[in-house]
Amino acid sequence: MARWEPNARERLVRAAIDLFSEQGYDNTTVIEIAERAGLTKTTFFRHFPNKREVLSTGQEELGQLLREGIAGAPTSTTPLEAVAAGLDAATARFTPAQREFGPRLEAVIAANSDLQERDAFKHTRLVAAMAEALEERGVPDPVTRIAAELGGLAFSRAFTRWTMPANTLTFSELARRTLRELHAATRGLD
Amino acid sequence: MARWEPNARERLVRAAIDLFSEQGYDNTTVIEIAERAGLTKTTFFRHFPNKREVLSTGQEELGQLLREGIAGAPTSTTPLEAVAAGLDAATARFTPAQREFGPRLEAVIAANSDLQERDAFKHTRLVAAMAEALEERGVPDPVTRIAAELGGLAFSRAFTRWTMPANTLTFSELARRTLRELHAATRGLD
Repeated sequence: MARWEPNARERLVRAAIDLFSEQGYDNTTVIEIAERAGLTKTTFFRHFPNKREVLSTGQEELGQLLREGIAGAPTSTTPLEAVAAGLDAATARFTPAQREFGPRLEAVIAANSDLQERDAFKHTRLVAAMAEALEERGVPDPVTRIAAELGGLAFSRAFTRWTMPANTLTFSELARRTLRELHAATRGLD
Repeated sequence: MARWEPNARERLVRAAIDLFSEQGYDNTTVIEIAERAGLTKTTFFRHFPNKREVLSTGQEELGQLLREGIAGAPTSTTPLEAVAAGLDAATARFTPAQREFGPRLEAVIAANSDLQERDAFKHTRLVAAMAEALEERGVPDPVTRIAAELGGLAFSRAFTRWTMPANTLTFSELARRTLRELHAATRGLD
């Protein structure tokens, strides 16, 4: 019975993070996640191939937003300004639910070495997406790579800042501010 | 019978890379690796917990060398020069066997998403080791992090250059050259 379930994806993510936080990632089954979400195992597998993928939800979309933002920046834009445009575009992903999930997800990942590996790979792929989008703009290597690495650092740091309870700024504002700080710090390398 | 086997570790790594290249990582068993190396399964497990760890051999030692090299640089040294000292220290790891294994290992990793995740995590940990060693020198954040990321990029790129058949330079020479190129490229970000 493949009927439509409202917000099934978000309900599954929420249930998974709740259970991973309460009883640990390894001790949680797909059936438990589906039950907690008030959905069936079949519905779970319609959205995710396994419990690990629940934690990578939206990853492809995020890479795509970064690419589009960088590609869409005006031709005259500097490499780092193009990265900032990519981070602006990524802001579309940052919903109130994301803000709530973020710190809890980080705690789950920090407790599991397998998830840490996956998380490192996610970061690597986001950086690669940005580097490729910069290359397509004609930015030369290794400027592409350095700009993309700074973009990756800005992304991670701005995300942490954005999820802080007292924060009132948008992700885009924080990402641009962090990118400026990182750029300024490159002058302190020597 | 726990007798001493000369070069058992290197023989196991060589056998594993041979088999992974020939028949794929997923299709290779620990027993096959031990047999190809002319050793027993027991000897294999004395050196590695599983076949995946064969590909991470020396990772801890490498992180330690980077840390020690950075810690041992003179007090007046700039952050990037301290990173270069870390890369110098890492040169101890780069034996002729490593030079032969490097490109074949990269091909095995490129063919397997699980190994790519592990590889991304290894890179993340090397960068973290460098960032921590810089922090202990009193280098402020985010300079620590940027210098460590450039060190990570220099490490990967210099390793690839070092394994090229026509290369006649040492890893240390290539790492310092690459680090200078990366540093120069930071001026092209805006």
